[in-house]
Amino acid sequence: MILTTSSQDLYNEYADKMQKIADVKYSAALLQWDQETYLPPKGAGFRGRQLASLSEIAHEWFIAPSLGILLEELGSRGDLADDQRRNVELSLEDYNKQKKFSPAFIRRLSETASRCFHSWLESRSANSFAVFEPQLREMVQLKREEADLAGYEQHPYNALLDQFEKGATVAFLDGVFASVRPPLKHLLDRIADSRTVDNSFLHGHFSKQGQWDFGLQLIRRLGFDFEAGRQDLSEHPFTTSFNCYDVRITTRIDERDFGHMTWSCIHETGHALYEQGLPPGYYGLPLGEFASLSIHESQSRLWENNVGRSLAWWQSIYPGLQTAFPDELQTVSLERFYQGINRVGPSLIRTEADEVSYHFHVMIRYELEKRLIDGSLDVSEVPSWWNEHYTAWLGVTVPDDKRGCLQDVHWSHGSFGYFPTYSLGSFYAAQLFAAAVRQAPGLQESILGGDTAPLLAWLREHIHSYGRRFTSAELCLRATGENLEIKHFLDYLLDKYVNIYKF
Amino acid sequence: MILTTSSQDLYNEYADKMQKIADVKYSAALLQWDQETYLPPKGAGFRGRQLASLSEIAHEWFIAPSLGILLEELGSRGDLADDQRRNVELSLEDYNKQKKFSPAFIRRLSETASRCFHSWLESRSANSFAVFEPQLREMVQLKREEADLAGYEQHPYNALLDQFEKGATVAFLDGVFASVRPPLKHLLDRIADSRTVDNSFLHGHFSKQGQWDFGLQLIRRLGFDFEAGRQDLSEHPFTTSFNCYDVRITTRIDERDFGHMTWSCIHETGHALYEQGLPPGYYGLPLGEFASLSIHESQSRLWENNVGRSLAWWQSIYPGLQTAFPDELQTVSLERFYQGINRVGPSLIRTEADEVSYHFHVMIRYELEKRLIDGSLDVSEVPSWWNEHYTAWLGVTVPDDKRGCLQDVHWSHGSFGYFPTYSLGSFYAAQLFAAAVRQAPGLQESILGGDTAPLLAWLREHIHSYGRRFTSAELCLRATGENLEIKHFLDYLLDKYVNIYKF
Repeated sequence: MILTTSSQDLYNEYADKMQKIADVKYSAALLQWDQETYLPPKGAGFRGRQLASLSEIAHEWFIAPSLGILLEELGSRGDLADDQRRNVELSLEDYNKQKKFSPAFIRRLSETASRCFHSWLESRSANSFAVFEPQLREMVQLKREEADLAGYEQHPYNALLDQFEKGATVAFLDGVFASVRPPLKHLLDRIADSRTVDNSFLHGHFSKQGQWDFGLQLIRRLGFDFEAGRQDLSEHPFTTSFNCYDVRITTRIDERDFGHMTWSCIHETGHALYEQGLPPGYYGLPLGEFASLSIHESQSRLWENNVGRSLAWWQSIYPGLQTAFPDELQTVSLERFYQGINRVGPSLIRTEADEVSYHFHVMIRYELEKRLIDGSLDVSEVPSWWNEHYTAWLGVTVPDDKRGCLQDVHWSHGSFGYFPTYSLGSFYAAQLFAAAVRQAPGLQESILGGDTAPLLAWLREHIHSYGRRFTSAELCLRATGENLEIKHFLDYLLDKYVNIYKF
Repeated sequence: MILTTSSQDLYNEYADKMQKIADVKYSAALLQWDQETYLPPKGAGFRGRQLASLSEIAHEWFIAPSLGILLEELGSRGDLADDQRRNVELSLEDYNKQKKFSPAFIRRLSETASRCFHSWLESRSANSFAVFEPQLREMVQLKREEADLAGYEQHPYNALLDQFEKGATVAFLDGVFASVRPPLKHLLDRIADSRTVDNSFLHGHFSKQGQWDFGLQLIRRLGFDFEAGRQDLSEHPFTTSFNCYDVRITTRIDERDFGHMTWSCIHETGHALYEQGLPPGYYGLPLGEFASLSIHESQSRLWENNVGRSLAWWQSIYPGLQTAFPDELQTVSLERFYQGINRVGPSLIRTEADEVSYHFHVMIRYELEKRLIDGSLDVSEVPSWWNEHYTAWLGVTVPDDKRGCLQDVHWSHGSFGYFPTYSLGSFYAAQLFAAAVRQAPGLQESILGGDTAPLLAWLREHIHSYGRRFTSAELCLRATGENLEIKHFLDYLLDKYVNIYKF
């Protein structure tokens, strides 16, 4: 039957199935968004099972043998258009990975994640890891099962890394981190030995409404399309997308910390600009999806740091900020502001860390996750291991779990293997930004005038418009002419901090 | 196989299937809620197909022959507990109704409703029925098909009425409206011939924030549990529920019309108190659902009118309102306020109509829907038919479509046959309220003190806790000792308006 059907008919059948699966997956994503923004507390229980049912359906449909047969057949047809062929290839790859998990397993993962998330919220209120421990133990156990089901070579953590960054392994990341750690440590030491930089002005009083309004202005200015997305509040800022015409970001506002809202807004906007820039017309198909998590993070980190912590950009933005918060900032010069927002120092909270020590936060989580997943560290040991390493690697004493091992939402979602993409993303960001500056004439001048449209256009052309067509490495090579090179990141840091710290 | 399985195992299998269907249905309800509250405009297209896919899945699962066989078998078992037997009986009834519709038909209905809703929003912006007409035509055509598929005796509209109010027919409603129209018309005439009542103070300037805050206070005071629900803003106020622990209401605020927010808040709270009071432990099963639309409306109308427009209740609420809006209300006495909020007069907008003329709004829609569904009126004739009947029955000239036939959202959702339940709900409300006052000692005194908890307790006991166990008629008989009797409603109106209009 299938042999006599035209390739285009088969392709349409495939696209139709994928789009219905996308409908269910994106519905689940909306339930999740609601869970973290508006869900009333008593609704959490049933929300958990609703999410689990949707995950189960989407998975069941995707691993249906009939879809497998269709994909195999389409894969053997020589008369598909280039983008059709690529969609089929990527879907088949996904299919072969996903069919290793039963729908019941996916349901368990989803149910556990919902419980785990609420337990994480409770443990943060109670400021006690002990509240979270039983749920986290269950989650870690499940992720170890997942690694076994997925299969791996050398290290079980490789199976989880691969889900966020195709092909990433412990061996690769150990190498990357080993090469970046010494120069970063050296830089930190040189900075510590030089002058001090003040950023106390970020910790005055910045009203909630004032921050909210300023944040919206920033987002709009960076090119976020509010007709195709929105911003809301949540405990932990995040970006989610239900298609390129409905991309949602969240932020959190602390009246005593202007920085948190500002750079989390810019970070999430970076993610959102990528999602809004994905090629329309591929709803539910791989070419309509993002390339990888590290490329996603390269977008958020690029906007957050290479743009959002640059002197050039703030040149035109800062006067408006001073007008919005005259009591706090009228007497703070642009120069002092710029230095303050780039202050380097020991820190407890990853999302508030400077661009140098940030990667030690990531490396600690990476080392910890490896050990949890290979079983060499017990869940009960997380706080002590965490606290020891924060002292040893970052020189800080962790005062409590909320500012320690409970700070990130990721584990409660079951996202083990995600954190390394934050560092990879920063490295890609520096390399992409340097390439954009090289390639696009006038780009730096436009940023100086507060106009980032040319930068966005470059990213749309070289990254966003390809969807998932290329891997991270391929995208990087095509866009910059080189493989991933840490030196762009290190050069960028050195250039910035020599200037600020005058060492 | 099925014959040798224990009844309890079969029942659990049934409950499990129903709960998974509920997961999908309630997920769709969240997508709908989001569509009317937070969805960015460009997201409407894909939201439509996401909703359609969820409706299709839920329907496909529910009409699966395996569920039918299970229900038949369970229906024949003599060893189920009473509530289990009733659940099975009601599910079988639903099954037999629903299996007449193919999943593809359900998908078309859902997709058409999404498009229709957005076209309705556009037509309201453009203030032009012509914008809505093509989509409405498609919807009416689909509802006529639906009536044919469902099957009916005598009138196709009966098939649609039955979906909202089991057993309701054109013959029954023609009779009810024929009996209520003359006394209501007589009352309207007597009121028109007596003194005038002023309510201009409701149309001063009431700030959005002030109204929002006061609305939340009211809702809380009436017993809405904010741990198990929330209020948001939308174009057309509505209530939706994803289980008794997550019930959501919306309101709309007009700074030049204090009444709209206030009584729509109380109305939706009435719906919400019912949903929050449904028996927990029956998630996804009939006994966890509301009895019927007319009983649902009896709850909203009871709180809106019998409580929310009573002198007794405002006695303790009004001082707080005066404090919230001193410029507008400090010089308005409670007596004047009470009379004003009960002012009777010709009106264009149903949701803002007084309790007497309200039912003419319903009757016009009822007559119009009957004609659209039996084909004796063409969709293009809706505005002229509407405008003529508003002049003839209500004595008003409809100035434009927005204040005419475009005012209600229902048709865009495909809800034909819904409006009559508003009137039935008002009639039930009066009868239930009278019974509560008779049966619960001290109830009136507590309302005088602003405490409606005893009334809510009575409703919880006599209505809410039964879920869908009884029909509207059975519930009415059990709670009040009588069948539906319009005289309670007429007595209530007469008592109120003789007092206000002194005729």
